[in-house]
Amino acid sequence: MARVTLIGGGPGAWDLITLRGARALENAEVILTDHLGPTEALEEIVDTSQKTVIDVAKLPYGKSVAQDEINRLMIEHAKAGRRVARLKGGDPYVFGRGHEEVLALAEAGVECEVIPGVTSAISVPAAAGVPVTHRGLTHSFTVVSGHLPPGHEKSLVDYGALARVGGTIVVIMGVKNVEAITRTLIEEGLDPATPAMAVSEGTTSRQLQVRATAETLAAEMERAGVGSPAVYILGNVAQFANFSS
Amino acid sequence: MARVTLIGGGPGAWDLITLRGARALENAEVILTDHLGPTEALEEIVDTSQKTVIDVAKLPYGKSVAQDEINRLMIEHAKAGRRVARLKGGDPYVFGRGHEEVLALAEAGVECEVIPGVTSAISVPAAAGVPVTHRGLTHSFTVVSGHLPPGHEKSLVDYGALARVGGTIVVIMGVKNVEAITRTLIEEGLDPATPAMAVSEGTTSRQLQVRATAETLAAEMERAGVGSPAVYILGNVAQFANFSS
Ligand SMILES: C[S@@+](CC[C@H](N)C(=O)[O-])C[C@H]1O[C@@H](n2cnc3c(N)ncnc32)[C@H](O)[C@@H]1O
Ligand SMILES: C[S@@+](CC[C@H](N)C(=O)[O-])C[C@H]1O[C@@H](n2cnc3c(N)ncnc32)[C@H](O)[C@@H]1O
Repeated sequence: MARVTLIGGGPGAWDLITLRGARALENAEVILTDHLGPTEALEEIVDTSQKTVIDVAKLPYGKSVAQDEINRLMIEHAKAGRRVARLKGGDPYVFGRGHEEVLALAEAGVECEVIPGVTSAISVPAAAGVPVTHRGLTHSFTVVSGHLPPGHEKSLVDYGALARVGGTIVVIMGVKNVEAITRTLIEEGLDPATPAMAVSEGTTSRQLQVRATAETLAAEMERAGVGSPAVYILGNVAQFANFSS
Repeated sequence: MARVTLIGGGPGAWDLITLRGARALENAEVILTDHLGPTEALEEIVDTSQKTVIDVAKLPYGKSVAQDEINRLMIEHAKAGRRVARLKGGDPYVFGRGHEEVLALAEAGVECEVIPGVTSAISVPAAAGVPVTHRGLTHSFTVVSGHLPPGHEKSLVDYGALARVGGTIVVIMGVKNVEAITRTLIEEGLDPATPAMAVSEGTTSRQLQVRATAETLAAEMERAGVGSPAVYILGNVAQFANFSS
């Protein structure tokens, strides 16, 4: 039966993929890669010379057309009997359209195995010394996609509630909206002095990080040049950031 | 300098540890393991015959004394010049006291490298077909430690706010309190018909799972024998559970 393996590649460093994920890449004949995760360092994980590697970040389309084209390519190669691996950044099920791909494959009668990965939401702050939880400080953490500003008609996040849950707030895909997100959380009751930090290109050689407070985060990210892709954190755990600036 | 490597071992299946984590285990002379993660299957990852393996779950103490004893053992072996690996379930920074161990080591002048892992909070639901996020359904997910019941004087979670954030709710360490947690969330406004599911011993050969709604989850877990260690999920994504019961 036609099959695809959807692999979580981890945050970026090549050796943060799982053993199961690395083996699936070795077994693959066709690999579809993303712009995040260990794509740049794929050669460190497998010998790609005998494989067809398709960098879907380079597909010449807009965003949603590109997703249709990715699905079409996976289905076509799988139905032609090739062993297909789809490599995604982080974990496939954390805001990566992974489950959309699973559903598209199922609809086309293609089986799909999902291999979990180390998500950037947790590992990228960790790479700068910040744990998403710490005993006595927090009993929860919320991972939010910041791709829409608070109050956007399509936003599914109640920022008023988020400001009050009491745990660590982790934002991914939120560089563009950092000013609106931090301002809204503060308006909704989050202490402006809440420790905050941000990390871009975490676990890679280009990793940059900055510490701040909820109030100063947007300005500090701008000043330090911490741009996309980045993860930022609001919460007492940010005090543990183990770098100076 | 004395050094310890703190390794996230993933949810349980041996091949869900990272390449970096597996290599750190290979390099270690002393390995301190937990009761969760890939401890049972350690032999699949490394040849332990030349290593000292200490199963800290078997330390003959109560919970907090055991933590002091774990810290003491790590420090003692590291200061004696041995390469020490501390293997934890899931990711070290997700409710695993990982950062407490980092602080204890730092205080003793022992360097610590932290290697992230695949957390059970995301990978265990995934092992039953449930993604923590899905486009159009949810823009956030909150991982909560359910070790304290709602309203407990030491609880740091505002369940009223949690019920309103609008994203997926993932509870770990919450089997004992599932009845109180679901009841409180419903009293605070969560729709009792919200899809729910639970998985115990996910990714291992003993994995069990059950589907339910917020209202029926506690009873269904009891009926199906889904006990600790388990992860449960409340949210529309639970509708994707790919099993029948
Ligand atoms: C489409 S989401 C996919 C997330 C992925 N599925 C995961 O679990 O990490 C992409 C976002 O993840 C975050 N991200 C991924 N890798 C990152 C890295 N190495 N450093 C910082 N942020 C990263 C950024 O917020 C980026 O915009
Ligand atoms: C002390 S916490 C540590 C969590 C770990 N650091 C992680 O990231 O997965 C232990 C809890 O994790 C959950 N857990 C860990 N492994 C699991 C598995 N294989 N199946 C179900 N739940 C698991 C259970 O809720 C358990 O009570």
